Amino acid sequence: MLTRRTAVRNLGLFLAGSPLLEAQHDLTNKGERLPAIDELVNVLDFEPVCKSRIPNNSYDFISAGVDNEWTLRRNRQAFERITFRRRMLADTSKMDLSITLFGQKAEMPIFIAPTSSHQMVHQEGELATARAAAQVKTIMLVSSISSYPIEEIAAAAPHPLWFQLYPDADEDGTRERVERALAAGCKLVCLTVDNPYRFQSERLERNRMSTGGQPGDAGSAARRRRTPEQQAPNRYLLRPTPTSRLTWSFLDQLRSWSKAPLLVKGILTAEDAGRSLEHGADGVVVSNHGGRLLDGDPATIEVLEEIVNAVGGKIPVLVDSGFRRGTDVLKALALGAKAVLVGRPPLWGLGAYGQAGVARVMELLQAELARAMGLSGCPNLASINRALVRAAP
Amino acid sequence: MLTRRTAVRNLGLFLAGSPLLEAQHDLTNKGERLPAIDELVNVLDFEPVCKSRIPNNSYDFISAGVDNEWTLRRNRQAFERITFRRRMLADTSKMDLSITLFGQKAEMPIFIAPTSSHQMVHQEGELATARAAAQVKTIMLVSSISSYPIEEIAAAAPHPLWFQLYPDADEDGTRERVERALAAGCKLVCLTVDNPYRFQSERLERNRMSTGGQPGDAGSAARRRRTPEQQAPNRYLLRPTPTSRLTWSFLDQLRSWSKAPLLVKGILTAEDAGRSLEHGADGVVVSNHGGRLLDGDPATIEVLEEIVNAVGGKIPVLVDSGFRRGTDVLKALALGAKAVLVGRPPLWGLGAYGQAGVARVMELLQAELARAMGLSGCPNLASINRALVRAAP
Amino acid sequence: MLTRRTAVRNLGLFLAGSPLLEAQHDLTNKGERLPAIDELVNVLDFEPVCKSRIPNNSYDFISAGVDNEWTLRRNRQAFERITFRRRMLADTSKMDLSITLFGQKAEMPIFIAPTSSHQMVHQEGELATARAAAQVKTIMLVSSISSYPIEEIAAAAPHPLWFQLYPDADEDGTRERVERALAAGCKLVCLTVDNPYRFQSERLERNRMSTGGQPGDAGSAARRRRTPEQQAPNRYLLRPTPTSRLTWSFLDQLRSWSKAPLLVKGILTAEDAGRSLEHGADGVVVSNHGGRLLDGDPATIEVLEEIVNAVGGKIPVLVDSGFRRGTDVLKALALGAKAVLVGRPPLWGLGAYGQAGVARVMELLQAELARAMGLSGCPNLASINRALVRAAP
Amino acid sequence: MLTRRTAVRNLGLFLAGSPLLEAQHDLTNKGERLPAIDELVNVLDFEPVCKSRIPNNSYDFISAGVDNEWTLRRNRQAFERITFRRRMLADTSKMDLSITLFGQKAEMPIFIAPTSSHQMVHQEGELATARAAAQVKTIMLVSSISSYPIEEIAAAAPHPLWFQLYPDADEDGTRERVERALAAGCKLVCLTVDNPYRFQSERLERNRMSTGGQPGDAGSAARRRRTPEQQAPNRYLLRPTPTSRLTWSFLDQLRSWSKAPLLVKGILTAEDAGRSLEHGADGVVVSNHGGRLLDGDPATIEVLEEIVNAVGGKIPVLVDSGFRRGTDVLKALALGAKAVLVGRPPLWGLGAYGQAGVARVMELLQAELARAMGLSGCPNLASINRALVRAAP
Repeated sequence: MLTRRTAVRNLGLFLAGSPLLEAQHDLTNKGERLPAIDELVNVLDFEPVCKSRIPNNSYDFISAGVDNEWTLRRNRQAFERITFRRRMLADTSKMDLSITLFGQKAEMPIFIAPTSSHQMVHQEGELATARAAAQVKTIMLVSSISSYPIEEIAAAAPHPLWFQLYPDADEDGTRERVERALAAGCKLVCLTVDNPYRFQSERLERNRMSTGGQPGDAGSAARRRRTPEQQAPNRYLLRPTPTSRLTWSFLDQLRSWSKAPLLVKGILTAEDAGRSLEHGADGVVVSNHGGRLLDGDPATIEVLEEIVNAVGGKIPVLVDSGFRRGTDVLKALALGAKAVLVGRPPLWGLGAYGQAGVARVMELLQAELARAMGLSGCPNLASINRALVRAAP
Repeated sequence: MLTRRTAVRNLGLFLAGSPLLEAQHDLTNKGERLPAIDELVNVLDFEPVCKSRIPNNSYDFISAGVDNEWTLRRNRQAFERITFRRRMLADTSKMDLSITLFGQKAEMPIFIAPTSSHQMVHQEGELATARAAAQVKTIMLVSSISSYPIEEIAAAAPHPLWFQLYPDADEDGTRERVERALAAGCKLVCLTVDNPYRFQSERLERNRMSTGGQPGDAGSAARRRRTPEQQAPNRYLLRPTPTSRLTWSFLDQLRSWSKAPLLVKGILTAEDAGRSLEHGADGVVVSNHGGRLLDGDPATIEVLEEIVNAVGGKIPVLVDSGFRRGTDVLKALALGAKAVLVGRPPLWGLGAYGQAGVARVMELLQAELARAMGLSGCPNLASINRALVRAAP
Repeated sequence: MLTRRTAVRNLGLFLAGSPLLEAQHDLTNKGERLPAIDELVNVLDFEPVCKSRIPNNSYDFISAGVDNEWTLRRNRQAFERITFRRRMLADTSKMDLSITLFGQKAEMPIFIAPTSSHQMVHQEGELATARAAAQVKTIMLVSSISSYPIEEIAAAAPHPLWFQLYPDADEDGTRERVERALAAGCKLVCLTVDNPYRFQSERLERNRMSTGGQPGDAGSAARRRRTPEQQAPNRYLLRPTPTSRLTWSFLDQLRSWSKAPLLVKGILTAEDAGRSLEHGADGVVVSNHGGRLLDGDPATIEVLEEIVNAVGGKIPVLVDSGFRRGTDVLKALALGAKAVLVGRPPLWGLGAYGQAGVARVMELLQAELARAMGLSGCPNLASINRALVRAAP
Repeated sequence: MLTRRTAVRNLGLFLAGSPLLEAQHDLTNKGERLPAIDELVNVLDFEPVCKSRIPNNSYDFISAGVDNEWTLRRNRQAFERITFRRRMLADTSKMDLSITLFGQKAEMPIFIAPTSSHQMVHQEGELATARAAAQVKTIMLVSSISSYPIEEIAAAAPHPLWFQLYPDADEDGTRERVERALAAGCKLVCLTVDNPYRFQSERLERNRMSTGGQPGDAGSAARRRRTPEQQAPNRYLLRPTPTSRLTWSFLDQLRSWSKAPLLVKGILTAEDAGRSLEHGADGVVVSNHGGRLLDGDPATIEVLEEIVNAVGGKIPVLVDSGFRRGTDVLKALALGAKAVLVGRPPLWGLGAYGQAGVARVMELLQAELARAMGLSGCPNLASINRALVRAAP
């Protein structure tokens, strides 16, 4: 029988690009006292605890944005341009935050965004994350780049998963990837379209410089496992992914052999929302990839409404990048999003406390959203509308 | 005869939710020199003096806002978006700041906002506050959650009081509460509608964590006295108040058994101002509860004009949250408010110097308002109008 | 023959309100090296040198703004909202910055604003300032509150002066004040209308507190010489000046007995500019009194254009408050001002180096303006127009 | 045979105004470790390395802006007002950043701006810079004020150069200057029109003060070599250049004896763009001279579109001032610029590593631009258009 690590190695499909697979860190505390989980009063409190528990390179890999990290900061600051117009004296004694989307029910409109290689922060990796998602009854989007095979992740959790797709270099590979995920029980395919190049962080580059790129650090591990295409940065020092060769017709191709609901993730303009519609997407995710791709991308909350207006209610719009508070989520819902994905917060929870941490992070977000909704006179998601917020220009 | 404390205990009506009733702090100086009261040149100067005189938990309870305290800061910053358009050479040698509202005269359009449990900061609690209000001839709004019974507070002060109402869990309780206040001499009922949940401050939560929630601190005292409904946070970790079950028809109910003038406090939108009008309110108070309820609420000075326009002069509009300067007050009056309530400043005065401190705080605000009016060519409240200010978008 | 100080004492007219007349400070260096004057590269450099040479109270009296000093800061920051639209390749080899206003020629459109009691910063007081104005051939506005009698000031300087008027408590006194100034050779009366109350600075109040209000400090000297009216702050703690009783008809009165050109200083709205026109003013000065009267006044550069538009070119508009750079001046000229007054900068020059300092300050401003004009394709004042600047909203 | 230095001295044409010609600094490291060039991850990293390698005065001369250096900072900050509207799923696997402008091909739309006296930072001066430009196949604009004669610079580099022209005091001198540059192989004349006065930096003035203006420092060297006209600052303390006497007819003159393509550099308004067109310019460069001339100039990225609209596509518009990132460049291209010039970055590269540093700086900018374009769905310059960016007001 295969050991854990061997099993992962054999599943090359999910390894592509996984930068830290070998970093099976001994996640012992670095000497600092681990606070009891209920001493953390909000999601932001989990970040320093996570940081104290995982290797610095892993922390930087999770935290970093691209270049000056301007978009990373903008993702937070932009929420301040929106204020509430809450309404009083609506009976909110019976709150209900549940949502059914693409046939799947969740107890909150806050899902776990697809992020790669959860073993980077906790040995149980995606298994723990998936169990936590099931525990709090929300949806987890499993990344194409996972530390565990999709079958094991799906087996770990009773609640159905969605599958995030990075296309493979050839169509057959992509199709195998999708079919395997669906066979494992995933209920939806979420195609990420925004990264023709691999993540390139100056923060991580500087780490590599200062450590001399020793084996075991994230950067060097990634470099050693590059495919030939990825080995040599091209003439413009770029590190393309298979996505760089795709056009919108790829969606048609995908639809021709998959009937699963299809989300297109990484939409930032009305034009691309329209293209998604034309090519048969069942929904879009407004995302700037957590500020990790182009420094100068707007915050997603700034462009959400443009995209909501463009799809005109024909398909649901989801959104991610920078959400840390229930009030952030409520602002997005008021501007027309159906649900919000959170990426770094569950990783903080995972790195800090494993499954329990992920579950607590999601519960706190749910609680904050419930409080914000109740204070705004909204007992359920259907009662949220555009009049709830005022957006500064 | 009952002792002071016993008396309070027996008046359960006013105890509901009072978080610090037992904290009959020995309000001795913590060792710092107490400055002479006339060394304090403005209202803001009273805050550090108060802080040096009262328990840290009490100070935090007064000061805290909700979550990131963004709205708390916004309440102050938003005044900077408004500048004056003052007019010269109007004879202002005879200033008159008096106002008559709902039949009650005051010597300034600046009233004492309802805040809970004044014994948290000074042993004489609301008795001292009420005496100070009478001394400077302004209106005090007495909170439903007071350290002293309304009868004693009313007896302490010759100037009539207004009564702030938090609804009880059942209508009879509410009615008894109102009738008792009116019987004691209160002239108006000010119904607070903006808090379906109890105040939840991360600052206070962290205090509780670091002290282990020992008896005697605010948080634990509050927890120990919770009603069954309040004991168990519900599935979304919420702590509802009776207000969470109310709708606008509650106003009709109230009007059916009370003929006292009715203010509705906690209005933040034109829509709710309109609802207040429809359901018979005699006035509204624009308030975000001092930044203590929903982080993301706009500053009240930002939305005041929307509400003034919505009521179209049919009933008076009052406003609170963040007022610290005479110029702040004048900006609100120019935008259409009839009067301004101040909450924390009189508490700072009370904590620092007792009755004399409250009186001085109100006098300083009055003096600053008089100076700002005189410099603007306004000898009285009637001469203030919209042309006096310019509001940046 | 009278000694210098006795002479001043006998001229009660000019003493009214002079807060520091007795403070004939020994203006010796406080021990720091006095830099050579040409080591100072811009006007701002003179402030710390002045500060090192004069009593702290004098420095604070000059520097302070009212309340939070928000308008004081805004006066500087608001210039940043205006950027240039300069034009190239206009022959600017022959620059001419001269201006003729109300029949008086000056070599720069930058005049010395009226400020009180120049002996506060230098023993030669207004005599030195007036000599410096003559030296650089610009106009000095002499304050009603001067350390020297107007006759001596006028005698000190060959270049004609303008007279700033604070009305006396009765008309005869005012008329005597004006006629005496005109007899001494002043060519214009500049009536200040914006201060119904005396300057009230929290910074100075705090100084008084910490020094116990000892004789010799600015505050206490002022208090000791108060007229009965000024002694007792009225019910609203105000300290009115005779201006508080005036209306616009005072201008008609003034015009009935004085044919000198009349500037009205302290205009902040189109409405008051219109009133000035109606009542016969020959010009207006847009001013917020250097941020010393109402905290919340806009920067003058923000409202200049409103006033320029209101007078429609019928009379010249001047402006002061916060000007420190040639580029500041050019922005005002482009927005329609005919000239700019500077108040604190010449006082810094005077306190630091006496007459030579005032002259150098004015020369530096002139040089900076010349450079800014030349770089913008404007060889003279007539070539400056509205198209030269872009104003952000 | 002439020594290097003697040769330079004999070429008075190129010496005019060169402030640091004698400063043939021994560019040895000041004791800090020189990092390996590939440890620098972006262009900004080169600045501190350069600073550690060159005399302080040289560094300040390069870095300084005029007056408060507000425009210098604005040049950077203004990029933040523009965000991307990037498009996904355009095949960007084959990137091409090449451009042909005025008949000259370059491998990137990022050229080396004309800056004076490269020996200030490296002994090989413009020879190294020109070699680096040829190495990375981009265009270098050679300043009229160079450390080496134009013939030597042109001989050093196979890639054709463009010549930046400062007019001489008389037309013959100017013509000789241009003809000599064209004879040496320069392919275009770029006339700078924005500096009627010499650069005047308070930072450098203060340096001079604090060093006593010793020989060898930038300021004093410059002063010693001033022409008679430059020796005596005129009545307004100005230091005019020959440009101060020119008008737009100078362009007609120039065109009458030169058929080389003519760029006009230093355009900041639609009006001057129109004038350039009228007088036969083949292109314009939007520039505020790196924030070195008028403090209050807008950032060039703020006014670029006004100028692009004014020329209406008739001639190309280039831009410089403050560009440090590939995303900065892409914003300018989206707003209509054909190419961007960078001034300080190649000097940082030159000062830090000589030719290799210049080449690396340009390569990094090229790589960042390629990445930004690829992420935005733009495989080449032709695919970039106005819809790619959103500009805040």
